[in-house]
Amino acid sequence: MQKKDYASRSLEKHYEWQGKLEIKARVPVGTKDELSLAYTPGVAQPCLEIQKDVNKSYELTRRWNLALVVTDGSAVLGLGDIGPEAGMPVMEGKCALFKAFGDVDAFPLCLKTKDVDEMARTIYNISGSFAGINLEDIAAPRCFELEAKLKELCDIPIFHDDQHGTAIVTYAGLINALKVVKKELSAVKIVVNGAGAASIAITKLLLSAGAQDISICDSRGLIYAGRSEGMNTAKDEIAKVTNLKKASGKLADALVGADVFIGVSVPDCVNSDMVASMNEDAIIFACANPVPEIFPEEAAKGGAKVIATGRSDFPNQINNVLAFPAVFRGAFDCRAKDINDEMKLAAAEAIAGLIGEDQLGPENIIPEAFDPRIKEAVAAAVTAAARKSGVARI
Amino acid sequence: MQKKDYASRSLEKHYEWQGKLEIKARVPVGTKDELSLAYTPGVAQPCLEIQKDVNKSYELTRRWNLALVVTDGSAVLGLGDIGPEAGMPVMEGKCALFKAFGDVDAFPLCLKTKDVDEMARTIYNISGSFAGINLEDIAAPRCFELEAKLKELCDIPIFHDDQHGTAIVTYAGLINALKVVKKELSAVKIVVNGAGAASIAITKLLLSAGAQDISICDSRGLIYAGRSEGMNTAKDEIAKVTNLKKASGKLADALVGADVFIGVSVPDCVNSDMVASMNEDAIIFACANPVPEIFPEEAAKGGAKVIATGRSDFPNQINNVLAFPAVFRGAFDCRAKDINDEMKLAAAEAIAGLIGEDQLGPENIIPEAFDPRIKEAVAAAVTAAARKSGVARI
Repeated sequence: MQKKDYASRSLEKHYEWQGKLEIKARVPVGTKDELSLAYTPGVAQPCLEIQKDVNKSYELTRRWNLALVVTDGSAVLGLGDIGPEAGMPVMEGKCALFKAFGDVDAFPLCLKTKDVDEMARTIYNISGSFAGINLEDIAAPRCFELEAKLKELCDIPIFHDDQHGTAIVTYAGLINALKVVKKELSAVKIVVNGAGAASIAITKLLLSAGAQDISICDSRGLIYAGRSEGMNTAKDEIAKVTNLKKASGKLADALVGADVFIGVSVPDCVNSDMVASMNEDAIIFACANPVPEIFPEEAAKGGAKVIATGRSDFPNQINNVLAFPAVFRGAFDCRAKDINDEMKLAAAEAIAGLIGEDQLGPENIIPEAFDPRIKEAVAAAVTAAARKSGVARI
Repeated sequence: MQKKDYASRSLEKHYEWQGKLEIKARVPVGTKDELSLAYTPGVAQPCLEIQKDVNKSYELTRRWNLALVVTDGSAVLGLGDIGPEAGMPVMEGKCALFKAFGDVDAFPLCLKTKDVDEMARTIYNISGSFAGINLEDIAAPRCFELEAKLKELCDIPIFHDDQHGTAIVTYAGLINALKVVKKELSAVKIVVNGAGAASIAITKLLLSAGAQDISICDSRGLIYAGRSEGMNTAKDEIAKVTNLKKASGKLADALVGADVFIGVSVPDCVNSDMVASMNEDAIIFACANPVPEIFPEEAAKGGAKVIATGRSDFPNQINNVLAFPAVFRGAFDCRAKDINDEMKLAAAEAIAGLIGEDQLGPENIIPEAFDPRIKEAVAAAVTAAARKSGVARI
């Protein structure tokens, strides 16, 4: 393993790369004639066509394929609030993934403001150049508010990958994990640990997929409606539709008799005894990264049947790259106005569907990040769902 | 000539191109190891380096080479206010030119606002991703106010090509035209026709280059301090340093005895009689495009010695592409905080200097747009001037 070396090797590479993206011209401008077609005087005509019908901006400029990847640098990786410019290496990397796995032209921007209204106005003001917007590494609860405001203002998809990408891939894994243990989503007891952007988005998507019994824990334990301490608007909201029995207690209490544990939280907060207290054929998604809530070996000791993590060196990696490039590809292919729940559920089902019944097993519930079938399968499913749910323009 | 066909040919090409730019990844992300270097977990290290020293954003991301090309769509080509999205074909073309002639990665954005304060905040908020900003096709007087506000807010170059690019290339042409007629800039009488962004910028640059006698005309005639009609803040301002004798009258009156006519105005507003009324060896820059203030043949009839236009089908084309890509290249090469007058004058002198004494003549005062020597010569001159004037970071 070279893992220890990634920091220094990556830094060296970043100095060598001098930026992970560049802008490439797709047209020749080396002769007077070429210049007259790509620029003046010829370019006046495409301008006038767009003036007549703004939808033509999807045909006569790169807009149809352009995503904005935007951060305020306030929740970058596990590094916290490191400032806008310092978030850019991650944004550039994200854009490289958009291109490699979705054929999406993604451009990275960092914002020198953390005022939600100003962030929303700034992004709205430049939204006419893009077909969709991916919010990235923006701290909760600001990310929820920003997303809601932008969905109001803009008529293009607003997607916060840290929420919705994570939710899609988690649900994709869960579809197949439940098949392995022969349980139904509507019948299982699910415990989600962590009350940040990702866990709340996962919870909402699982609810809209048909889950009936989800409880969320934060560092204080079970969240329930009316809990007096450590609550916020997002927790109050989600408490209305989770833990309907209003159970209280710690994570260890919550796990007793549970079928599914989904951790998007902190390292080492689950042990094998806690897993052993769960229902038979327990499913463990320990997605804290790089150190999971419980290592697979420990979880297996506790009797877990299916174990997934966020790491590439164990089976069943829950990796957002399985979703966001292809989800945008599908949304862009039909000029979607939104990426709605129907599209997210369709994406998850398409990802899960790539593991055939015959290949399915405790250590094979989700495709590898580099599976070349993902883009086409997921994009097609997303496009179909967009059309069916009425948000596709074409 | 295929000129008539440019509109339809260009439109056809634009449909075929589906955008004149694309984002290219400069790094491989096809294996787990590659992903770990370009993205998580390795990418955390370059992020932390930038957090410690924001200047590292010029080394560890593409910022060092990134220009923003931004419009509100309010003064696109000769088309007027066609709206933000409709301006994008021009912005994409401009970015293609930045790349081809300056090796600058330029990204185009359109703004869905024409409120100067909101435009300034929006551009400032995203400025941390760029090494410089090129304002484009923004109507006067808003463009002046926006430029001034951004120069206050940002610590990277703010350049309005319609003003400063035009001024640089015009001055470059004038340097050599004056050599041809053996007159001194400080001694000639110059008449500028048009009182828009370009003509005011040309006037200011010529004044800072040493011109002593410049008068500006608008559609009402000579502008002078205290003129009661058709004035605005920009005209009031420029009237303080031009037409110091406060002469009044029409353009025809202004031209009597003048040495230099510079038109950035409207077609056919000058005739050969007016040229004949000028001083001997008159210089005519008739830059209205595509139909100039006077065609070269007519101007020659009036006795003009050196004639330039904005068109590529006559000698001496005043073309902004001679300046902006290489000016940005030079500014970026030294991480300039500004593009100041010293740098603009140096750029003009470098462009003019590419025409050797032996090649100089009435029909050869300025290099062709495709002259491969421009980038290096102009960039080096701009970098040197930036260092000398104290705005270079490296």
